[in-house]
Amino acid sequence: MAKAHNITLLGAGLIGTFYTMTIQGQRSRDRIGAICALTEDEARAFARRWGIPKWTASMAKAVNDPDSDIVIIGLPNYLHKKAVTLAARAGKAVLCTKPLARSAREAMEIMEIVDKAGVFAGYLEDLVYTPKTLKSIASVKRGALGKVLWVRSRETHSGPHSAWFWDKKLAGGGAIVDLACHCIEIIRSFIGKKVRPVEVMCLADTIVHPIAAEDSAIALIRFEDRAVGQFEVSWAFRGGMDLRDEVAGTEGTIWLNHFLRTGYEMFTAGGGKGYVAEKAESETGWLFPVGDEVHELGYTNMFSDMFDAIDAGREPTETFLDGYIVNAVMDACYRSARTRRWEPVRLERWYKGAKKAKAGPAKKRAKARYSLIKEERMPDGTIKRLLQDWKTGRVIQKVKGR
Amino acid sequence: MAKAHNITLLGAGLIGTFYTMTIQGQRSRDRIGAICALTEDEARAFARRWGIPKWTASMAKAVNDPDSDIVIIGLPNYLHKKAVTLAARAGKAVLCTKPLARSAREAMEIMEIVDKAGVFAGYLEDLVYTPKTLKSIASVKRGALGKVLWVRSRETHSGPHSAWFWDKKLAGGGAIVDLACHCIEIIRSFIGKKVRPVEVMCLADTIVHPIAAEDSAIALIRFEDRAVGQFEVSWAFRGGMDLRDEVAGTEGTIWLNHFLRTGYEMFTAGGGKGYVAEKAESETGWLFPVGDEVHELGYTNMFSDMFDAIDAGREPTETFLDGYIVNAVMDACYRSARTRRWEPVRLERWYKGAKKAKAGPAKKRAKARYSLIKEERMPDGTIKRLLQDWKTGRVIQKVKGR
Amino acid sequence: MAKAHNITLLGAGLIGTFYTMTIQGQRSRDRIGAICALTEDEARAFARRWGIPKWTASMAKAVNDPDSDIVIIGLPNYLHKKAVTLAARAGKAVLCTKPLARSAREAMEIMEIVDKAGVFAGYLEDLVYTPKTLKSIASVKRGALGKVLWVRSRETHSGPHSAWFWDKKLAGGGAIVDLACHCIEIIRSFIGKKVRPVEVMCLADTIVHPIAAEDSAIALIRFEDRAVGQFEVSWAFRGGMDLRDEVAGTEGTIWLNHFLRTGYEMFTAGGGKGYVAEKAESETGWLFPVGDEVHELGYTNMFSDMFDAIDAGREPTETFLDGYIVNAVMDACYRSARTRRWEPVRLERWYKGAKKAKAGPAKKRAKARYSLIKEERMPDGTIKRLLQDWKTGRVIQKVKGR
Amino acid sequence: MAKAHNITLLGAGLIGTFYTMTIQGQRSRDRIGAICALTEDEARAFARRWGIPKWTASMAKAVNDPDSDIVIIGLPNYLHKKAVTLAARAGKAVLCTKPLARSAREAMEIMEIVDKAGVFAGYLEDLVYTPKTLKSIASVKRGALGKVLWVRSRETHSGPHSAWFWDKKLAGGGAIVDLACHCIEIIRSFIGKKVRPVEVMCLADTIVHPIAAEDSAIALIRFEDRAVGQFEVSWAFRGGMDLRDEVAGTEGTIWLNHFLRTGYEMFTAGGGKGYVAEKAESETGWLFPVGDEVHELGYTNMFSDMFDAIDAGREPTETFLDGYIVNAVMDACYRSARTRRWEPVRLERWYKGAKKAKAGPAKKRAKARYSLIKEERMPDGTIKRLLQDWKTGRVIQKVKGR
Repeated sequence: MAKAHNITLLGAGLIGTFYTMTIQGQRSRDRIGAICALTEDEARAFARRWGIPKWTASMAKAVNDPDSDIVIIGLPNYLHKKAVTLAARAGKAVLCTKPLARSAREAMEIMEIVDKAGVFAGYLEDLVYTPKTLKSIASVKRGALGKVLWVRSRETHSGPHSAWFWDKKLAGGGAIVDLACHCIEIIRSFIGKKVRPVEVMCLADTIVHPIAAEDSAIALIRFEDRAVGQFEVSWAFRGGMDLRDEVAGTEGTIWLNHFLRTGYEMFTAGGGKGYVAEKAESETGWLFPVGDEVHELGYTNMFSDMFDAIDAGREPTETFLDGYIVNAVMDACYRSARTRRWEPVRLERWYKGAKKAKAGPAKKRAKARYSLIKEERMPDGTIKRLLQDWKTGRVIQKVKGR
Repeated sequence: MAKAHNITLLGAGLIGTFYTMTIQGQRSRDRIGAICALTEDEARAFARRWGIPKWTASMAKAVNDPDSDIVIIGLPNYLHKKAVTLAARAGKAVLCTKPLARSAREAMEIMEIVDKAGVFAGYLEDLVYTPKTLKSIASVKRGALGKVLWVRSRETHSGPHSAWFWDKKLAGGGAIVDLACHCIEIIRSFIGKKVRPVEVMCLADTIVHPIAAEDSAIALIRFEDRAVGQFEVSWAFRGGMDLRDEVAGTEGTIWLNHFLRTGYEMFTAGGGKGYVAEKAESETGWLFPVGDEVHELGYTNMFSDMFDAIDAGREPTETFLDGYIVNAVMDACYRSARTRRWEPVRLERWYKGAKKAKAGPAKKRAKARYSLIKEERMPDGTIKRLLQDWKTGRVIQKVKGR
Repeated sequence: MAKAHNITLLGAGLIGTFYTMTIQGQRSRDRIGAICALTEDEARAFARRWGIPKWTASMAKAVNDPDSDIVIIGLPNYLHKKAVTLAARAGKAVLCTKPLARSAREAMEIMEIVDKAGVFAGYLEDLVYTPKTLKSIASVKRGALGKVLWVRSRETHSGPHSAWFWDKKLAGGGAIVDLACHCIEIIRSFIGKKVRPVEVMCLADTIVHPIAAEDSAIALIRFEDRAVGQFEVSWAFRGGMDLRDEVAGTEGTIWLNHFLRTGYEMFTAGGGKGYVAEKAESETGWLFPVGDEVHELGYTNMFSDMFDAIDAGREPTETFLDGYIVNAVMDACYRSARTRRWEPVRLERWYKGAKKAKAGPAKKRAKARYSLIKEERMPDGTIKRLLQDWKTGRVIQKVKGR
Repeated sequence: MAKAHNITLLGAGLIGTFYTMTIQGQRSRDRIGAICALTEDEARAFARRWGIPKWTASMAKAVNDPDSDIVIIGLPNYLHKKAVTLAARAGKAVLCTKPLARSAREAMEIMEIVDKAGVFAGYLEDLVYTPKTLKSIASVKRGALGKVLWVRSRETHSGPHSAWFWDKKLAGGGAIVDLACHCIEIIRSFIGKKVRPVEVMCLADTIVHPIAAEDSAIALIRFEDRAVGQFEVSWAFRGGMDLRDEVAGTEGTIWLNHFLRTGYEMFTAGGGKGYVAEKAESETGWLFPVGDEVHELGYTNMFSDMFDAIDAGREPTETFLDGYIVNAVMDACYRSARTRRWEPVRLERWYKGAKKAKAGPAKKRAKARYSLIKEERMPDGTIKRLLQDWKTGRVIQKVKGR
């Protein structure tokens, strides 16, 4: 039978719960062998709930558990580097939750640690792995949209649960670091991961919550092929968790709704109680649950890719280099929010052997004097043509066949 | 580690493919060990495509493979009984695709075969296991809709691929046998599986295809608690595969769309080619794919339930008794379509120890003379009450507090 | 300038309000000249609110107002005949709200009254005139769906406001008389108004409200061309007012949602107050208002058709004959609900000169032995054909070009 | 009867057709008395089609028609000033289509012309008047969303029909001038028309069509109360005409879809032919028509407001000042697209007596050391509070009641 993994999980919060539900869900052959939480009590409770044989409050002990071959990091951002260091030292495969780090500099340090140790490293960016996203990306690669011109990725809700998210120093920022990391990777996946993000313009603000970090941001990202990415993130959105992506290309468009409108609608006057969905705002009235959250949010496909990659000795779809690039784009966003200008994305590392992407469907400044804008057959059988006259700058109309 | 299963799969058609994708998908620990197809060539091709070690055109040989502990039947309806017989004789767990049989009589024979052999038997009704359906059923059980009054289940497309589906004798009927089996079980799951279906009124017709079987049918099913189920099935629907369910109760409603509107919308002018979704009608224009078909259609949860049930020594959610009841309801539909009357559902077997369901929110014919229909506080502070006067049969209005 | 009308309106309830908003809305040239309500006070208040010059509690006085040329009846069902009689006697055009009467017999009497008087008579069935419905009917007439096979019309909410609706004697019934009259006319409009409804099978029940009338019903209506209509009506639906229609034909399908999902979605945590929409259930959470109710519900187009018809001396789209047919179908529904059998629709009058509709796409029992079910080109270049063999009853497969 | 208007219409293109359908539609009392087109032939054909008594190719003659009291300008942008001049000189009310001018300077000149002449002037921005938009704005004004924080307005399709749109000099620009004028006014209407737009950041590009003007643009608009508007316009979108608006506030959200998803869905395999909707891309497959375009796009409400304003001697909702502000915002967008910086919106005129809007829900930098981020009651009965500590910059957690 195919290889089964024994995993050390660091972190027993919401993300650790989702990871565990996924890894031990359905007919999976992999198991969490050890859980590390903040306190011994929390660790024990989590272990009992999920049937995990070992628990501890010591990160080192958990990482060095002799039975586990993979370390999964589901910890607050400020602990990622420490955890990666321990895992790399133990020579184990390491999978780290998003964002990889609090800054591109820290992400680079993390990359160097695993590079030196030569261990497998996967970046746990789940939203790139949702079933709809994977299938859409495949369609885009087959050319269903022609050349991709624009991608919008929106991720908004009313704010996270845990305290550290709200702490700018521990998290590395606010809504951008929490949410835009998803959006950036979704945008890159549709435009093409080997197309360089060139510069960003970002507007960030703290409009609702009394915090030092930003609670809302919008940014435009320009890529070397002239495609544009656009993200909208917020901790101030009311109505639930809004996860939507839109892609437009020369030949078509894709609209994805991952959470609030997925063909599952319920009205209840209040007879029943129970969990509706992550960040749902109410338990009565019209509600919009999702079928299977861990699957719809991409966790299932993400861990399948990661573990299959380990088994096959190949790279996973999302690597630490991807995580680093995401951090670099977010760094540029923070700079732009301060300078109020387009800021370059500073990338000290890129894909080996990647070619520069060709500029997209450029403004075809004809060498000849005229460019054809459109041609239509009219009801009277004549052909109407609109032409850009580059010499005069005017648009002229020609009718043939009269 | 938890037990892994080695499976003999009978049938290498569309359903066999879906089953294999599911059972061997993601990080599953279970594997198909042997495939039996109609011909040796088909079996070999299927085995190669899916990495199955053994193949054969002999059903007996496949069933009796010494490595396998489960036999899965993905065969045309007319072969179910023969296959179950072989599996039962081999003393193996047997899982049979829907419908269980071509008639209640045949279903009863099949049940008796596995009962006598004492083997585990599961009914592979996938649409009861879709993530949306499972979660909805859980909400209903918690009381979110109050008392369920009405369930509509619709399953329509433009017709099946394989020849045997169209052959009334091999299939046992047409669109009802193919599609209504799903609807009936969805309806029962929402109303409560232990609530008896009492009688049916069915309209069946052959309106588009030149076949002996019905290509469209609508039916009403009355349950002992006065709830009503309604199915609409057709092989004559244009626009793709339409799978929708609606549930209405005294306190709320649920609307499920499993296929054509799930938050995944794509327009393509034709640049790309590729599989869109089961029974999609076109490859350009506005398309509505689904994210992960085997998951969205319930296959993943279905096999998890079946294999977990085997491992735990418990009954699966869907048993051969459920399959038998579905066949009994369909038999009543065929009778009703002929007699054009309400026909009783004849059930020779029922759940052991099940109590009769209480009648639903009955017309409360008050013992007192008046029943309160509604009471409203008016803008002027008075209370307006509408009362049914059972003696006169009239509705009267009373205003208090003037 | 085109002719402007002065109208006597009978009835100052919800329907009278909608009618007035429509008739005096936008840049209309027509005006309500006199309003008749139950009491002088109500009439005066209504007149002031809407700028109507005359008010009264006397139906005769209102109808005989010398300035008005049209009488519009927005009264409870049991007063329709009396009001029509007065209007006919006054020699004025009469427009009557739905349903025309409490029974086909009463509808026939009403028709005979206007026939003898020779006055213009229009049946105010608004939902046939919604912008979406009118455009859809036009598409169907142009053949966009091929032959119409099935129409579903659903109208459900949590129950009407006024007392008389709940009173079986005053209203002529319950949810069927209130709501199915809309559905039947929608169904007829899609199938073709000159296609005879032949018979109905109806299930009616009183499942939630303590009343003598039915609060829920489902019916199937068979037409002479084998098309099937299906209505679902209820006063027990939770979640708002659900108005949906679906049409399926041999070449396509149409799905209309008139109220709860029209591209207008709002979440509010409760900051604002105000009217959401007719029969909306709540004022917080996710709400689904409609843009312009009187337009979306068809009132605008309905009155334009009626007044234009009067001006042009032509029949309106909806006549008293249509109202009579609707009553006849509803009568058959009530009979069927009692007898639990298919009941014929008894029509004593029909369209003059209408031809019998041809039977729809019939089961083509080939005179030859075989009928072609489908033909597919396979990947290997061969042609696969499925044939119904009428002699043996079996489906056979033939492959050519190997 | 209320006053009826006789109108001179300048322009017989698509917009002139929509205006005529609206003004002469339903039971309107107003009539187009004279039509002016580019050629005598076009004018005559248009007049015949719509029952207009007079036609001409002379703008002066049409404007000075003795019977008309209103001049409506439905001409290409470069003719607006000339037409306004003629109408003002004739002392007639003038209504001008969007955009008011090709630049803020030209808009200012146009404003001054009508100011001097003292004639009524209305700005024909239809999309602010859609039924959904009007009702949404009313909800927002009642406080349903709390304080508005962000508005997205998207208007994209595959490009206009007439030649002059594509000509930068005649139109004053490309997609921004054609489409963003709508978006800007929608955004302003939701945020509050008296809240000043302060600065814009715009990205414009010519990515698909071989033209001198931009065919796509995205912009952010900052208002003095810290609300943000965001528009996305394009002539390169595939799939139809995409008109969507989203509004988010501190207490709720509104999502409007005006065109492609309005509860009207049709699949057709191609049996019928006919107009689907403005800028629809295909006639088969899944289509999404709108019910009544002139109503859904706001034309009906717009002309009612304009004509009612004239009758009442009040200002219309949309004035030339609004048109001027829109041009000023667009000018800033063009500057920003060139300089790649935030550019101030230069407004030489503003609403008389308007107060400066208060800054929105500002980052409440507490004077005290701590701000409360959130407070939750935990399952064990304790109260968990998250506090921003402004001195250290950290977020701390406090638990009470243990």
